[in-house]
Amino acid sequence: MAKIVECVPNFSEGRDLEKIEKIVEPLRGKEGVKLLNYEADKDYNRLVVTVIGEPGAVKNAVIQSIGVATNLIDMNKHRGQHSRMGATDVVPFIPIKGMSMEEAIQLSRETAKEVWEKYNIPVFLYEKSATKPERENLATIRKGQFEGMSEKLKDPNWKPDFGESKIHPTAGVTAIGARMPLIAYNINLDTTNIEIANKIAKCIRHSSGGLRFVKAGPVEIPEKGIVQVTMNLTDYTKTAMYRAFEMVKMEAKRYGVNVLGSEIVGLVPMEALADTAAYYLGLENFNMDKILESGLME
Amino acid sequence: MAKIVECVPNFSEGRDLEKIEKIVEPLRGKEGVKLLNYEADKDYNRLVVTVIGEPGAVKNAVIQSIGVATNLIDMNKHRGQHSRMGATDVVPFIPIKGMSMEEAIQLSRETAKEVWEKYNIPVFLYEKSATKPERENLATIRKGQFEGMSEKLKDPNWKPDFGESKIHPTAGVTAIGARMPLIAYNINLDTTNIEIANKIAKCIRHSSGGLRFVKAGPVEIPEKGIVQVTMNLTDYTKTAMYRAFEMVKMEAKRYGVNVLGSEIVGLVPMEALADTAAYYLGLENFNMDKILESGLME
Repeated sequence: MAKIVECVPNFSEGRDLEKIEKIVEPLRGKEGVKLLNYEADKDYNRLVVTVIGEPGAVKNAVIQSIGVATNLIDMNKHRGQHSRMGATDVVPFIPIKGMSMEEAIQLSRETAKEVWEKYNIPVFLYEKSATKPERENLATIRKGQFEGMSEKLKDPNWKPDFGESKIHPTAGVTAIGARMPLIAYNINLDTTNIEIANKIAKCIRHSSGGLRFVKAGPVEIPEKGIVQVTMNLTDYTKTAMYRAFEMVKMEAKRYGVNVLGSEIVGLVPMEALADTAAYYLGLENFNMDKILESGLME
Repeated sequence: MAKIVECVPNFSEGRDLEKIEKIVEPLRGKEGVKLLNYEADKDYNRLVVTVIGEPGAVKNAVIQSIGVATNLIDMNKHRGQHSRMGATDVVPFIPIKGMSMEEAIQLSRETAKEVWEKYNIPVFLYEKSATKPERENLATIRKGQFEGMSEKLKDPNWKPDFGESKIHPTAGVTAIGARMPLIAYNINLDTTNIEIANKIAKCIRHSSGGLRFVKAGPVEIPEKGIVQVTMNLTDYTKTAMYRAFEMVKMEAKRYGVNVLGSEIVGLVPMEALADTAAYYLGLENFNMDKILESGLME
């Protein structure tokens, strides 16, 4: 069986369409690489790209995109609502088919090495590729953001896994690693009060007593007059999507705030949505083999 | 993008396992054709087969199966509880991916033409392929069944779309057409009162004032001490699954009866479940391209 890896690089440019197209360009029309999706968010000022394909081909194409982003983005001028530390902020590799997590880790290490050698960007290995427990969590690595990274890297505990203890002057620092499929999931609240989103995020996230595979934080979306609880669901097979949604709804009631809806950023595995539908419809004897398309992918 | 069609031929043999295997045989191990499922019903004396794959390959394989069924089944000797008019009773083609309904109709016409030319079986085009409104509904075409078909075909209104006005002496008549994927969906009610299921079925089905693409009726499940509203959702893109579910729940309240859950019989298209999840989560900007596996099937 062919090995298939997914890669979801996040770049710090969500507004300039010309630059966005140039960053995505190396991922188009390459043998063994399929560009599945790219989404630019103006508020976040961030671009999330999803490619899938043969591991070596995906690695090479993504490294080219990182090169373009390094040339086009100056982090000293970057403003946006999403935490970030580099022009290429984070590059996760996700084993999808015929590939072990170990192989995905190896691929992430090779990528990290090349990014340092080619572009002089220091790289932290994160998630399953982390070399120390405190580097598993991206938020811990990114704490201080671009503006604080120069200082942070002076701390011997924060010596990058590849490269020197000095940020790239315009492209900052990049995190690269292997991980499980992740769902980036945001829930919209009918309020402008960021403190409410913050309190709900605290209830729901693992780090402060919530659900085991949820990371969460508050975000303001002033143009829409709302706030969001922004989440990463890091293992939807154990912490279901609908459970996170219902729990946010439950907590929102406490503040008399309505949940307006939600959004998936990037891609979502079919199983996560099927499981959600099965929950709300109370489906008995349901499994993924009941989905017509399951038969197509064997 | 590769085109994918589903085909669900129904054959009038549900008892003789040797014959059943011979009918299914041409659908096994063919390039571009995947046999998903086949189910023989003894009471119905009927075989329902589900295959999926590349349109041309599926068409050719199904035509071979029809040839085998034509040789093995003598309708003059056929007895069973399900209405039927031919050895190959009905052959629906369902566009699944990268394929328009128009293309599925074209495929059904090509199949019908070959079935007539190769096997001398007269064919009616039905559902979306119908050439007259009264030929859309299979039940209307099949009225009179095998035993009444010789007489029925003499009526100029019932001249077959392909072939002469004379049945095949042992294989009868076949209906071939394109249709939307159909979802067999049952909702369980916490009561033994069949009259309540009947009243709810009447509210929800198209024929008595309900939702446009719902057929519904009541069923007793005495072993479980419940009744069901049993439904066919004939176009889930227009009458969504969750809408049927919520409407049954709403009507059940009137009788103080709880909805216990629901079940899907057979297969369900991914889109129907994704749409259901999107409704309950209030997903904004959702479309099928957001599903990771969509990219794998192109």
